[in-house]
Amino acid sequence: MDVKEDIVKTHKRIESYIQNTPVITSQTLNRMTGAELFFKCENFQKMGAFKMRGAMHAVLQLSSEQQQKGVVTHSSGNFAQALALAAQNLGIKAYIVMPKDAPEVKKNAVRGYGGIITECEPTLNAREATAQQIQKEKGATFVHPFNDFNVILGNASAGKELLEKHPDLDIIIAPIGGGGLISGTTLSALAFGNNCKVIGAEPFNVDDAFRSLESGNIEQNSTIDTIADGLKTSLGDITFNIINNHVEKIIRVTEEEIIEAMRLIWERMKIIIEPSSAVALAAVLKFKSEFTNKKVGIILSGGNVDLSNLPF
Amino acid sequence: MDVKEDIVKTHKRIESYIQNTPVITSQTLNRMTGAELFFKCENFQKMGAFKMRGAMHAVLQLSSEQQQKGVVTHSSGNFAQALALAAQNLGIKAYIVMPKDAPEVKKNAVRGYGGIITECEPTLNAREATAQQIQKEKGATFVHPFNDFNVILGNASAGKELLEKHPDLDIIIAPIGGGGLISGTTLSALAFGNNCKVIGAEPFNVDDAFRSLESGNIEQNSTIDTIADGLKTSLGDITFNIINNHVEKIIRVTEEEIIEAMRLIWERMKIIIEPSSAVALAAVLKFKSEFTNKKVGIILSGGNVDLSNLPF
Repeated sequence: MDVKEDIVKTHKRIESYIQNTPVITSQTLNRMTGAELFFKCENFQKMGAFKMRGAMHAVLQLSSEQQQKGVVTHSSGNFAQALALAAQNLGIKAYIVMPKDAPEVKKNAVRGYGGIITECEPTLNAREATAQQIQKEKGATFVHPFNDFNVILGNASAGKELLEKHPDLDIIIAPIGGGGLISGTTLSALAFGNNCKVIGAEPFNVDDAFRSLESGNIEQNSTIDTIADGLKTSLGDITFNIINNHVEKIIRVTEEEIIEAMRLIWERMKIIIEPSSAVALAAVLKFKSEFTNKKVGIILSGGNVDLSNLPF
Repeated sequence: MDVKEDIVKTHKRIESYIQNTPVITSQTLNRMTGAELFFKCENFQKMGAFKMRGAMHAVLQLSSEQQQKGVVTHSSGNFAQALALAAQNLGIKAYIVMPKDAPEVKKNAVRGYGGIITECEPTLNAREATAQQIQKEKGATFVHPFNDFNVILGNASAGKELLEKHPDLDIIIAPIGGGGLISGTTLSALAFGNNCKVIGAEPFNVDDAFRSLESGNIEQNSTIDTIADGLKTSLGDITFNIINNHVEKIIRVTEEEIIEAMRLIWERMKIIIEPSSAVALAAVLKFKSEFTNKKVGIILSGGNVDLSNLPF
């Protein structure tokens, strides 16, 4: 398997459905960190997050028979919206299982993209059982939010676009939740980078990926008490393998550091990012000396926030 | 006087000190309004607002003798920061008179750009008297935030950049405070547009410009109770003349409409704009039928907001 060719083909398949998002810089943040930072703005992606890339690719890779029967996933976050919009683009059905206590604003966003919501009890068991039932009843194909190679290849297109604009990056930093973004980023760094390292960033409060690399096994989180709501998930076997083999290291940051980095990006760069995206800049600010005079790509994973519930 | 040539020369003078800010679009907002909207992102301008353009030009047009003695203005808003940064760029002094009750965050921003703050009582009389004293003592040149032709020519560079990218705009909408932005925009629409009309947008609560065009005289505001803190000022004689002769009309919007438009831009476009900038989109949303199928430029004037004090 030639991963480089796979990513190139993937990018061609999805490019008419996604934004080639801008890469922006900030003199102020360069000065503050001592590094040269290149922010890949997936907050400007369709539906507001990188998840659109992987969801679109997964849907496009289905057979026409599969497409006819639709897709199903369980998510209360960005992947729910991404799969709904990806399916809508092809005129196929997206069944989205959401916990019944999910915020109304998130349900409305999914409905806005034509997603068909099935509510369930707010437990992982209930979510999985409900999704399985829909698979059975409707014949819909289950699409996993991150532990799916087609999804990872789709996500890899963000790193590809970044490296096409800035081929000489020394490092790319991405946040780690389930590991789908950093897995795709890692594959792109290997394929298109020039000795470009990949570093993960994770909240201390949900540092399952950090602990997984230490133990060599997929670890779980005992609490999910973080403002970075996209990073609560644990790794899957596919993402764990990629991260374990290729990610340089994982930097952990506190909730205060996440909020401070988020505020800096809002105030200085005048763009809206979600807390999960701020984790990567927080990592650079925490260990400035490691990044001094380096060219550092930062993937801003998304911009979907509830403006009524900000940490400032 | 050839205004077109003046604006071209002005732009050349200032261009190495300013950002040629991006023009962005939003499918969602196009769908919501029925128009084709082109947002000129002066929130991404140096120091966070279009004011940098006029301030930079005013400072560059001083003689070297004048520059040696510095510049002075009174402002508690974006122009204070703009003049401080413009002066800092040339290594000259900027004396900024600010009311002593101005928020600490704004004073710090001025200090951050090397501005020398003199505090005074929070009345227009005290501000003017203090500025005059500094002129006398230091020999510094007073720079008016908007009623100054060099400032207006600097501001015109925003409209020029917008029309260079989109020469076929039917309309450009800009907010009106003292009228410096819309005056510059109007000159650029005349010089570089193809029958491009200019419309002003103003909060109902500070509708002095609307009333000034009705009465034919410069009217004042009896209250300044608006969230659009950049638009509280009344017109000057220079801006009034340009607006009175060339602006198609002024649309007034309510505070609720401003907040709603601001929220839409934050949520849908993922960029941070200040309330004053939202007034222009609020005007389009209020009178959609006037803009149907039109190509409409919207100048997003700035992005300096206090994140601790949001209306959401």
